[in-house]
Amino acid sequence: MGAGEEMYGFAGKLFPIGRSLTGEGVRQSLRLIQEQIPELKIMSVPSGTQAFDWTVPQEWEIQEGYIEDADGERIVDYAVNNLHVMGYSTPVDRYVSLEELLPCIKVEEEQPDVIPYVTSYYAPRYAFCMSKRQRDALKPGTYHMVIKSRHFDGQLNYGELLLPGASQREVLLSTYICHPSMANNEVSGPVVVTWLAKWLKSLDRKLSYRIVFVPETIGSIVYLSKNLAAMKERTIAGFVLTCVGDDRAYSYLETRKGNTLTDRVMQNVLGFAHPEYQRYSYLERGSDERQYNAPGVDLPVCDFCRSKYGEYPEYHTSADDMSFISPQGLAGSLDVMRQVILALEYNDYYRVTCLCEPQLGKRGLYPTESRKGIYREVKKMTNLIAYADGTEDLLAISSRIGVPVEELIPLVDKLCQAGLLESAKERR
Amino acid sequence: MGAGEEMYGFAGKLFPIGRSLTGEGVRQSLRLIQEQIPELKIMSVPSGTQAFDWTVPQEWEIQEGYIEDADGERIVDYAVNNLHVMGYSTPVDRYVSLEELLPCIKVEEEQPDVIPYVTSYYAPRYAFCMSKRQRDALKPGTYHMVIKSRHFDGQLNYGELLLPGASQREVLLSTYICHPSMANNEVSGPVVVTWLAKWLKSLDRKLSYRIVFVPETIGSIVYLSKNLAAMKERTIAGFVLTCVGDDRAYSYLETRKGNTLTDRVMQNVLGFAHPEYQRYSYLERGSDERQYNAPGVDLPVCDFCRSKYGEYPEYHTSADDMSFISPQGLAGSLDVMRQVILALEYNDYYRVTCLCEPQLGKRGLYPTESRKGIYREVKKMTNLIAYADGTEDLLAISSRIGVPVEELIPLVDKLCQAGLLESAKERR
Amino acid sequence: MGAGEEMYGFAGKLFPIGRSLTGEGVRQSLRLIQEQIPELKIMSVPSGTQAFDWTVPQEWEIQEGYIEDADGERIVDYAVNNLHVMGYSTPVDRYVSLEELLPCIKVEEEQPDVIPYVTSYYAPRYAFCMSKRQRDALKPGTYHMVIKSRHFDGQLNYGELLLPGASQREVLLSTYICHPSMANNEVSGPVVVTWLAKWLKSLDRKLSYRIVFVPETIGSIVYLSKNLAAMKERTIAGFVLTCVGDDRAYSYLETRKGNTLTDRVMQNVLGFAHPEYQRYSYLERGSDERQYNAPGVDLPVCDFCRSKYGEYPEYHTSADDMSFISPQGLAGSLDVMRQVILALEYNDYYRVTCLCEPQLGKRGLYPTESRKGIYREVKKMTNLIAYADGTEDLLAISSRIGVPVEELIPLVDKLCQAGLLESAKERR
Repeated sequence: MGAGEEMYGFAGKLFPIGRSLTGEGVRQSLRLIQEQIPELKIMSVPSGTQAFDWTVPQEWEIQEGYIEDADGERIVDYAVNNLHVMGYSTPVDRYVSLEELLPCIKVEEEQPDVIPYVTSYYAPRYAFCMSKRQRDALKPGTYHMVIKSRHFDGQLNYGELLLPGASQREVLLSTYICHPSMANNEVSGPVVVTWLAKWLKSLDRKLSYRIVFVPETIGSIVYLSKNLAAMKERTIAGFVLTCVGDDRAYSYLETRKGNTLTDRVMQNVLGFAHPEYQRYSYLERGSDERQYNAPGVDLPVCDFCRSKYGEYPEYHTSADDMSFISPQGLAGSLDVMRQVILALEYNDYYRVTCLCEPQLGKRGLYPTESRKGIYREVKKMTNLIAYADGTEDLLAISSRIGVPVEELIPLVDKLCQAGLLESAKERR
Repeated sequence: MGAGEEMYGFAGKLFPIGRSLTGEGVRQSLRLIQEQIPELKIMSVPSGTQAFDWTVPQEWEIQEGYIEDADGERIVDYAVNNLHVMGYSTPVDRYVSLEELLPCIKVEEEQPDVIPYVTSYYAPRYAFCMSKRQRDALKPGTYHMVIKSRHFDGQLNYGELLLPGASQREVLLSTYICHPSMANNEVSGPVVVTWLAKWLKSLDRKLSYRIVFVPETIGSIVYLSKNLAAMKERTIAGFVLTCVGDDRAYSYLETRKGNTLTDRVMQNVLGFAHPEYQRYSYLERGSDERQYNAPGVDLPVCDFCRSKYGEYPEYHTSADDMSFISPQGLAGSLDVMRQVILALEYNDYYRVTCLCEPQLGKRGLYPTESRKGIYREVKKMTNLIAYADGTEDLLAISSRIGVPVEELIPLVDKLCQAGLLESAKERR
Repeated sequence: MGAGEEMYGFAGKLFPIGRSLTGEGVRQSLRLIQEQIPELKIMSVPSGTQAFDWTVPQEWEIQEGYIEDADGERIVDYAVNNLHVMGYSTPVDRYVSLEELLPCIKVEEEQPDVIPYVTSYYAPRYAFCMSKRQRDALKPGTYHMVIKSRHFDGQLNYGELLLPGASQREVLLSTYICHPSMANNEVSGPVVVTWLAKWLKSLDRKLSYRIVFVPETIGSIVYLSKNLAAMKERTIAGFVLTCVGDDRAYSYLETRKGNTLTDRVMQNVLGFAHPEYQRYSYLERGSDERQYNAPGVDLPVCDFCRSKYGEYPEYHTSADDMSFISPQGLAGSLDVMRQVILALEYNDYYRVTCLCEPQLGKRGLYPTESRKGIYREVKKMTNLIAYADGTEDLLAISSRIGVPVEELIPLVDKLCQAGLLESAKERR
């Protein structure tokens, strides 16, 4: 079974869990991830903890949530689809007329068949969500709205995995675990990051990796409030992985500054591998990159997506289900991120060790017979050498000479072994 | 009565006056302006005064100027239109044949019905100006050319108004007052600058303003020769206002360096308010910006025009009359320059005061219910916050996030009051 | 007789000589050049000398080379066309069948009528070259392959001419002399460089000139190994002249860094004089610029060509003969390079000596009568003055104001004589 199928299978386990910013759903999800990567640490922070301008909210626990009609039939039920109750809803137990019921129902007006995903984290409210078609068909009568939920001082939880490398210079991988039953947004993110972590564990790492599974917004803010100094010192590149499971597109959302190493590696890898990729400005941001890039935090973190959040019709509805993602979609994302990571691992400032062109022929690296056209064959190598002056990194050379880093890596290895190339920093 | 009508009325008072580089016409014009802004100082510099590479010329006084035909009828008369005598003409009293007359007549060959505006400031000559149609209809006969004029050591005059603000950092507004009866070029400039000065007097100014009414070229050179050190130290932006009364276009001519604060504010304000505006290179310069931007002077001064001098057919002809300008044209220019000035007044380096995004919700600045699409509503504010890292000024943020400074000013005020934004310079 | 005809005549003398990297053909060519410029020094370096990563090869001497058919008729003969024997071929004297002969024959498959130019400098081999048409017509039978050649420790030769100027700052002109009977590539290069040298000898030089005639690749590497320190200190611009004799195009191949003075002067001169010129990236390099620009050598050297090597069908074949180049083609190249050199000679940082615009009128440099349209006539001069602030060199001003350096030179002279312009560096 390939990685794509494995990931899709794992996504199916995470999908049904009723997650929120805090609570048992998050802990259950983190424990499933821990089964895949036992080194993952599950951390907790008490409700009420201050994190910069924010406060860790209370836990939300929901036992059941439904609407019964006059016949006692449950027309919507949290147990059937956890999108039916607005996230973080306060408790309720009321008999109401249709007229009174309607203001408590959220629908997606433009898509009559889907249940929208709605939350109200920062104001106490309750509501139910259903399809527009279902709502419009409701008949006058008495309805019974029941939400058995409670808010209480508990914990906010997140997962953290630190993988040290030869250098303290660090790459951040961040994804979020607070959405209930939606597949692309957001079980695909934790799934691909989990498989990346497994692969990274076995890699002979030059760089270190910080991998975090956090509830969106408050989770990354809490995480930053505890780790900002180390992250500012060490982070050379960072990636929020979200909506990475569908087959439609590859997308990347720039860091705030737009020209960091993160942006360069993403543009390079996607530009060669998927030149049709979508590039979004930081003005179209919407996930945890908002915290990582905030003024004063200033970490170079981009988003990597297939279809970007907010840009596909199934987004934040019940249509973002397991049929919307695929093994191939997940595997494609994993592949791009592996290339990104390898490009970062090899992204040194190389310098040729001799003056003028090296005599490649005597080392068997060059055709001995000079004829029209023959230059093209060895051009990748000679172009790499021509620009290896220690002033540009491998990504810059790759873009300049039009050769993917993936294809330069074996040439770098060969030339370093021949003693013709060296890291410019080692000598300095 | 709106500002447009008031300005148009005032333009009508300035229009008939026979101005030249020096002389009674300039003084009369400055006194009319002084009636509007009593703080204006009228300065004088004697003929013969050296100013850099130039010398203040003699005053020119003209009593009358006309051509009579054989029947004693005045075919052109300075008293009827002061364009009929070439500016700065030497005196003459000659009876001549048509053949002798013709070389003394200037016409606009391409526009048969207009009288051209011609001067000869730096070589002693005389000439008359008339329409091509009139010249071509002249019959053989005897003509009497009369110009009663004299050149004598007198004064060069200019007006100056200094409006101090909280900071010594200064904005220059410059316009010229040496053209006879033409409306767009050039009574519109002094008129709009006069109304700007009235408005600035009542503004709670962070910046200081230096407002000058000078004869073109020699006037700005004389002014610079007296004020260069202070101007180089204080000037952050400068504007020559000329041809600001018609309805056809908005134009801006870059400073010599092309990327100064002056250029940025002009491009920003015109780009949002009048995106169809014409942008001219400094290579197409032609007014006092030539002196302000000269090497060694190096002040960041652009031109602001409606139809730029030299680019409209009525330019420097009798067709540039009061019907060519309008209340709306003048009011539009006043409005643009007010926006420019407000943008400069607010153009600070702002910085958000907390790490990560501020919790806008608890301050009533953010909707409490998270739903698809809802971000767009508060995006102006969150984008302002996202880039308020103290490294870019408000103009740069405005361009980056695509929101006019005009719309950012109330948000800046609101966020500063909430303690979420501060001037980056204050803390440093 | 014009320079074009003279150069074409001299090319005809160099054309028939059988050149290789080393040997009598190179020496004979250098002696012919020395007849034109007696100051040329002919240098020699022994075989086996180490130069950076390379070793000076043995000399190659060829007495004769031919293939006889069964009738004893020479079907190809080095004496008829020196392209018939692969350059640097080892000796051979074998009777072979057609089947055995064919692998020893090189043809240009895509052009049936031309003899290709092939060498094997760095692996011991022999081969014959002929047209595809001739090869395809060969009948079965016995053939006699004869090459009487020898390789022995001898000399590598090159020519060097140093022309000192008022400043030690130096311009490099480099061309190569190792190709046998081909006209554009490569007798045109040495010919045009020879005529440039003659002209430079008589020029009142501000700059110094280093002019070298080297065998390609190994020659420039040897030359650099002996002169690198001085060249790195002094070289401000450098040009490899190759393929400069045909009529088809003007081409320029960027330096490695792409934005040096060399690039700027080439783009400026060609941009004004031949705006249709071809610009090639350093990625398409292929001559001695590879050594001059190599990391650590870092000299700003471009190629100047008419039809660039590798880009015209006659390249490296017998069709690149004397009919492919022309007096006009050679003269055009000479003219461009003279303009390039004059632009470098005059490329100072100029500064206007007075504040504000100078009063050109009193010096007879400006029309005294101000009229619509009249500015355009003096605009070249006023634009030069407007940007002469000592921060940009003359090339930058030329590009900015859209006037060729050629037309600015007389204005610079005039303004310097009037005391209005000076070199910004002199005063500092």
